[in-house]
Amino acid sequence: MASSSPSSSDTNQDTNPINLRPTTYDTWCGVAHGCTKKLGLKISGFLQRNNSLDDKGRIVSSFKERHASKNLLVCENIEDSRFRHAETDFSNLFARDLLPAKNGEEFTMQFLLEVVDILLNYVRKTFDRSTKVLDFHHPHQLLEGIEGFNLELSDNPESLEQILVDCRDTLKYGVRTGHPRFFNQLSTGLDIIGLAGEWLTSTANTNMFTYEIAPVFVLMEQITLRKMREIIGWTEKDGDGIFSPGGAISNMYSIMAARYKYFPEVKTKGMAAAPRLVLFTSENSHYSIKKTGAALGFGSENVILVKSDERGKLIPADLEAKILEAKQKGYVPLYVNATAGTTVYGAFDPISEIADICEKYNLWLHVDAAWGGGLLMSRRHQHKLNGIERANSVTWNPHKMMGVLLQCSAILLREKGILQGCNQMCAGYLFQQDKQYDISYDTGDKAIQCGRHVDIFKFWLMWKAKGTVGFEAQINKCLELADYLYSKIYNRDGFEMVLKGEPEHTNVCFWYIPPSLRGMPNSEERQEKLHRVAPKIKALMMESGTTMVGYQPHGDKVNFFRMVISNPAATKSDIDFLVEEIERLGQEL
Amino acid sequence: MASSSPSSSDTNQDTNPINLRPTTYDTWCGVAHGCTKKLGLKISGFLQRNNSLDDKGRIVSSFKERHASKNLLVCENIEDSRFRHAETDFSNLFARDLLPAKNGEEFTMQFLLEVVDILLNYVRKTFDRSTKVLDFHHPHQLLEGIEGFNLELSDNPESLEQILVDCRDTLKYGVRTGHPRFFNQLSTGLDIIGLAGEWLTSTANTNMFTYEIAPVFVLMEQITLRKMREIIGWTEKDGDGIFSPGGAISNMYSIMAARYKYFPEVKTKGMAAAPRLVLFTSENSHYSIKKTGAALGFGSENVILVKSDERGKLIPADLEAKILEAKQKGYVPLYVNATAGTTVYGAFDPISEIADICEKYNLWLHVDAAWGGGLLMSRRHQHKLNGIERANSVTWNPHKMMGVLLQCSAILLREKGILQGCNQMCAGYLFQQDKQYDISYDTGDKAIQCGRHVDIFKFWLMWKAKGTVGFEAQINKCLELADYLYSKIYNRDGFEMVLKGEPEHTNVCFWYIPPSLRGMPNSEERQEKLHRVAPKIKALMMESGTTMVGYQPHGDKVNFFRMVISNPAATKSDIDFLVEEIERLGQEL
Repeated sequence: MASSSPSSSDTNQDTNPINLRPTTYDTWCGVAHGCTKKLGLKISGFLQRNNSLDDKGRIVSSFKERHASKNLLVCENIEDSRFRHAETDFSNLFARDLLPAKNGEEFTMQFLLEVVDILLNYVRKTFDRSTKVLDFHHPHQLLEGIEGFNLELSDNPESLEQILVDCRDTLKYGVRTGHPRFFNQLSTGLDIIGLAGEWLTSTANTNMFTYEIAPVFVLMEQITLRKMREIIGWTEKDGDGIFSPGGAISNMYSIMAARYKYFPEVKTKGMAAAPRLVLFTSENSHYSIKKTGAALGFGSENVILVKSDERGKLIPADLEAKILEAKQKGYVPLYVNATAGTTVYGAFDPISEIADICEKYNLWLHVDAAWGGGLLMSRRHQHKLNGIERANSVTWNPHKMMGVLLQCSAILLREKGILQGCNQMCAGYLFQQDKQYDISYDTGDKAIQCGRHVDIFKFWLMWKAKGTVGFEAQINKCLELADYLYSKIYNRDGFEMVLKGEPEHTNVCFWYIPPSLRGMPNSEERQEKLHRVAPKIKALMMESGTTMVGYQPHGDKVNFFRMVISNPAATKSDIDFLVEEIERLGQEL
Repeated sequence: MASSSPSSSDTNQDTNPINLRPTTYDTWCGVAHGCTKKLGLKISGFLQRNNSLDDKGRIVSSFKERHASKNLLVCENIEDSRFRHAETDFSNLFARDLLPAKNGEEFTMQFLLEVVDILLNYVRKTFDRSTKVLDFHHPHQLLEGIEGFNLELSDNPESLEQILVDCRDTLKYGVRTGHPRFFNQLSTGLDIIGLAGEWLTSTANTNMFTYEIAPVFVLMEQITLRKMREIIGWTEKDGDGIFSPGGAISNMYSIMAARYKYFPEVKTKGMAAAPRLVLFTSENSHYSIKKTGAALGFGSENVILVKSDERGKLIPADLEAKILEAKQKGYVPLYVNATAGTTVYGAFDPISEIADICEKYNLWLHVDAAWGGGLLMSRRHQHKLNGIERANSVTWNPHKMMGVLLQCSAILLREKGILQGCNQMCAGYLFQQDKQYDISYDTGDKAIQCGRHVDIFKFWLMWKAKGTVGFEAQINKCLELADYLYSKIYNRDGFEMVLKGEPEHTNVCFWYIPPSLRGMPNSEERQEKLHRVAPKIKALMMESGTTMVGYQPHGDKVNFFRMVISNPAATKSDIDFLVEEIERLGQEL
């Protein structure tokens, strides 16, 4: 333990390494596996490798004999032991030899340490710019089995050696989303504290539904949600919220909450009990509003798309016009979604003006800040979400701009009780009323899930480790990089910006114009050709594995690149690299 | 790498440990951090601990200097390096000193190795029966901060030393769901292969929506789902499915699929476009059918509860009567859920008879095998799900009976295309049609989520490591233990079974009758007293931390214990322990 106090013999030991001099293999192993904590020294054990199968068997047997007693591995007299990674032959070992198998402890520790070695190498290489972002293969190639990497499942077990190879191959043919040159999604990066948190979460392997089996995590969730509500600016003492499996589900919760608030009878009687309800969201908003509107029984046609301006921001006048139009048709406006950070343009809808309209017509205001919520952590950028404190609910995904590992999405509500009212079904076997503790901490009945993954711990741990100021610095840095990219390509030959003006978020959208198209007048032919440029560059990029950035058509605009920066590992040199790589790959198109 | 070949010098080294004898501190450090792979020896480095803050700072600085070049840590000439755990002072280190910080690699590796040490100790103790299952504290105690464990978040960062302490405390005050005496939920155990898989998943930190960023995981999901469909017995070449965040969401998918199959216009026009649709499920089924029925706009009243027999199995005659009754009222029956393994009793509904009725009335048949699906892996027990091959959809949670880490739940469909049709919204920025690979592998548009956590890898890896036969053995063992428990308490003084006959699943439901109630006639007073017994024993159990088992009232039955066994680490001795512990704690009530 880092905080344990050293014994006075530590310093003596400094100049007296004589105890570290075993003279035979066995003595050496004894030292290596013995408890040397008192000496302040940690020495890993080892076993010689051997190629011969017979010898392998012999070594494993001998290993088993020598380590049958767990005291050889674990120093029982101290609270937490330091485990020593010993060379182990896994070719004759199987899952059944691990815990809970009798004498399985040593093999379990060695197997997990071997896995950790693979993972640490992966982490190290992820941050190493000489490593590729990906080693691209087509689906049929991976399905056929590259270099013996067989994805098929079989009746019989594979050796642990093969399992370790499978782990290496899985990482080898995957995509390094934490690489400083991976710009493909809104969620990038590999935060080390978050990683530690997620490893711990997996090891704790519990479920969020009750305080009974997740006491610490349930409280961490409550405290973190409260902190997030404060940052949003809600002054109510008792708001609500829950972490959900992603922004789409968080948005789904917001619609369910709005419906329950205004038409609680829908819970029991169905949509038939309500008039024709309509929802409003901008044409630039995330597709999950429409998708969950369809799922919840509103129908996608009743999710009305409001026009956006040339920067992708919802136009309040059009919202009001569409509300009036709906009312005139006899429909009942229920809910408006304002987006803080649209997916493609990174646009922030004018929340205050939208809030005015929602107040005027008594509508639920939801702010989808899945992507832009992180900016609330920055004193420099939080003004872009002004008005969010007037929302009834907010979606905020720490797994995007805040760099939390996937996944971590919160739905936050200003009013307490709606989630519970909306979702509770009072399953007696899970939510007993006669427990010995305060059951108001059981969260399960306000979720639409039953079991719920622990998404909070990594986030809580990152917040502890960075502080609010750490998130702020990280977010400011990403936004500065976006400015840097914008300034770099704004007037650069061969680049054309999709939007006028500096970026508000880290989204920078642009076309690369290959030399062959540069002189061409803006005709349909040029547009068609330009439409094919980004996919071609992207394909070349993936095949060379050097970097990744997304592209898409949008509205009436042909395919363009959408650069987003959420990885604190990215630097100006990576931005330079991306620009030059696009030029290199697009030169001949 | 386990498969790398050793050099011939390895064996020579066996009897020649002379190179391991450094004579001064610095020389020793040199050996410890040098690249000794060639010698086949791994020795961890070390730093002396020191209590003085000044000295700490000095040591860290010196450590930084000596390790500025990453070559000291990492042997660059080999593909994968073995990392050496060195004693490191984390009290002056912060998250900002880790990668991507310049020279952050060494600290990153040492920090993660320290975390791994904490986790390995936790794993070891989880399987150690002398360790408590939990160290119970009330919410207010944890919120007040026990022994300095402060859950509140602050503006400023904490040192990595404090972060490590926070990790230890988080585990200390949690519940060991993998402990062989934790019987509290349907998901128990801590599978080592699954754990390795989940650590890797966290490290890969990607998202399931496209092949582009999760090529290997997307294919593993496809292959595993196909295998599961084969085991269900569907003969169609092209079924469908997806892993979802838990059984409740999987059940939600089944209802959405049924609705889309029969009333596709609801997607665009809402529930108003359909007649009054009704769903059927047994009174013993999981509450998520009702909950998601409410969420999707059917209304909980339109989820009609069918009677169960005394064992908790749906009564087909009552199903048919309720269908006819609904039709007579002008409602339109849409969907029947049959449960394979109910939550409390572990009952299997008679699927074949239910399938006959569904065929007769042209209804969608869903089988909720979240809990019982694992039995399909056992040739001895799979007959309990006979008829499942006639279902249109199946929920199957490998995180329950198969011991996969949380969470891992699959919704499987016999017919391909429904999920896609039901959920797709064609977001151009995510699901581009002009990619260079076969985009039919992109799964995002059939999900109700946008981002989707990688739940497949741990399961795939476990299947590889155990084979189908390994799962079979593990499941058979759990069912044998349930039989053992049943035989043990069936005629035991002070125990009364809730159900007649041997258990079908691992659920064993019973009352413990304290000596004070044993002679008492079955009066209302006795029932009231008995109702309070299980909660009291449970509270004492949690406070002593020795074991955990669930209880609940059910229908007209007062609180009883529901024992479930899904942890392959449990043995007969643990069952004996539980029974004796209940007797010990309940003796005086």
